[in-house]
Amino acid sequence: MDDPDTRALEGPVFVGARVALYPMADDYVDRILGAIGALAPWRESLTIDTDDLGTTMIGPPEPLFAAMRDLFVAVAETGVHVAMAATISRGCPGEPCDSRCATPRLPVDASPAPPPVEDRIAGALARVAAAPALGVPAAAQLSLYPLGAGHHMDEIEACIAFLKASGLGFAPRHFSSTLRGDSGPLFEALAEAFLAFGAPQGHVAMDLKVSANSPTAV
Amino acid sequence: MDDPDTRALEGPVFVGARVALYPMADDYVDRILGAIGALAPWRESLTIDTDDLGTTMIGPPEPLFAAMRDLFVAVAETGVHVAMAATISRGCPGEPCDSRCATPRLPVDASPAPPPVEDRIAGALARVAAAPALGVPAAAQLSLYPLGAGHHMDEIEACIAFLKASGLGFAPRHFSSTLRGDSGPLFEALAEAFLAFGAPQGHVAMDLKVSANSPTAV
Repeated sequence: MDDPDTRALEGPVFVGARVALYPMADDYVDRILGAIGALAPWRESLTIDTDDLGTTMIGPPEPLFAAMRDLFVAVAETGVHVAMAATISRGCPGEPCDSRCATPRLPVDASPAPPPVEDRIAGALARVAAAPALGVPAAAQLSLYPLGAGHHMDEIEACIAFLKASGLGFAPRHFSSTLRGDSGPLFEALAEAFLAFGAPQGHVAMDLKVSANSPTAV
Repeated sequence: MDDPDTRALEGPVFVGARVALYPMADDYVDRILGAIGALAPWRESLTIDTDDLGTTMIGPPEPLFAAMRDLFVAVAETGVHVAMAATISRGCPGEPCDSRCATPRLPVDASPAPPPVEDRIAGALARVAAAPALGVPAAAQLSLYPLGAGHHMDEIEACIAFLKASGLGFAPRHFSSTLRGDSGPLFEALAEAFLAFGAPQGHVAMDLKVSANSPTAV
């Protein structure tokens, strides 16, 4: 049912995230509520609902990653140790197609075969290079899961080749990769990892943690 | 390369997790270091290394989930709001086979076809029912990713059927499921979700968050 070569698409694939913010401070409630205020500019592009385990955001990947960036930076820029954990998904066969999530990066009528890996990596690198710096350093740990296709390790390896060339501090970890750098290009690189790898109509998930101001950061 | 029906296995599949603990308190450093002390009984079964983004644990799934439970409960039982985020993986084709990870639950010489879904669900429910309560309530948000096989949504749906029947408070969320209950059976249910669904030799990942003592918990 989820083979991107064969399933019928009736509209843009469903895109969104479950995002949790963890300020390591006694006044975490005020910090979380303050950071959620930083999402205000994104509420036109995204459907946003918060519960006790996190915030659900539904909408196109570009504002989605920008909103996660702003949520995280709102706490990180105060200097407190903070982590964010997000489960990000596109094209899950269990979700309906949704016009709220439309983006030219994931065209409904695309050829089933994505562009050549070299072209996707070059495009992703150009977008990272163009992202403005925000002056807030951070570290990210990400795992990308292109689901349902037989070639998932090829797409993971292509994504890792992009991350290594991104100019952000890359290191492999078991089950994941880590990136370190300014939050502006860092979140742009995370968005590209999510958008440029895995079939445009495929089911792709990302498991992401971001951390700032750790007293043990390398 | 990762089709569980065809790839040659030279030993037990690689199993492990990247685990991060987030106590929402000014004294988070002492709380994290104290909780890492709770891992001492598991260092014979697991290879454990901590860095600034989290702790890597390599070894069989049974002590792995028990160690994550003890790490989490060590902070949660003090009453402070705490979250844990874990990336758990088995059978990743990018990792070598590893005798440290052997478990009869993931036999190397198993038939490629796992047992019938009904049998796997019944076995998982029996293990959850037998798990001792710890008196520490928690909420979990999990996403299971059986990778590389064409039937991944069937396995996800079987896992959800198990979770719904587990006796733990189940609710669907976008991209994930939530469970609520005592940490003892809760972590047993998480271990079963990871072990009983997806091919025994397949590549299966879990994106897990656990939370306790949230002031907004339902």
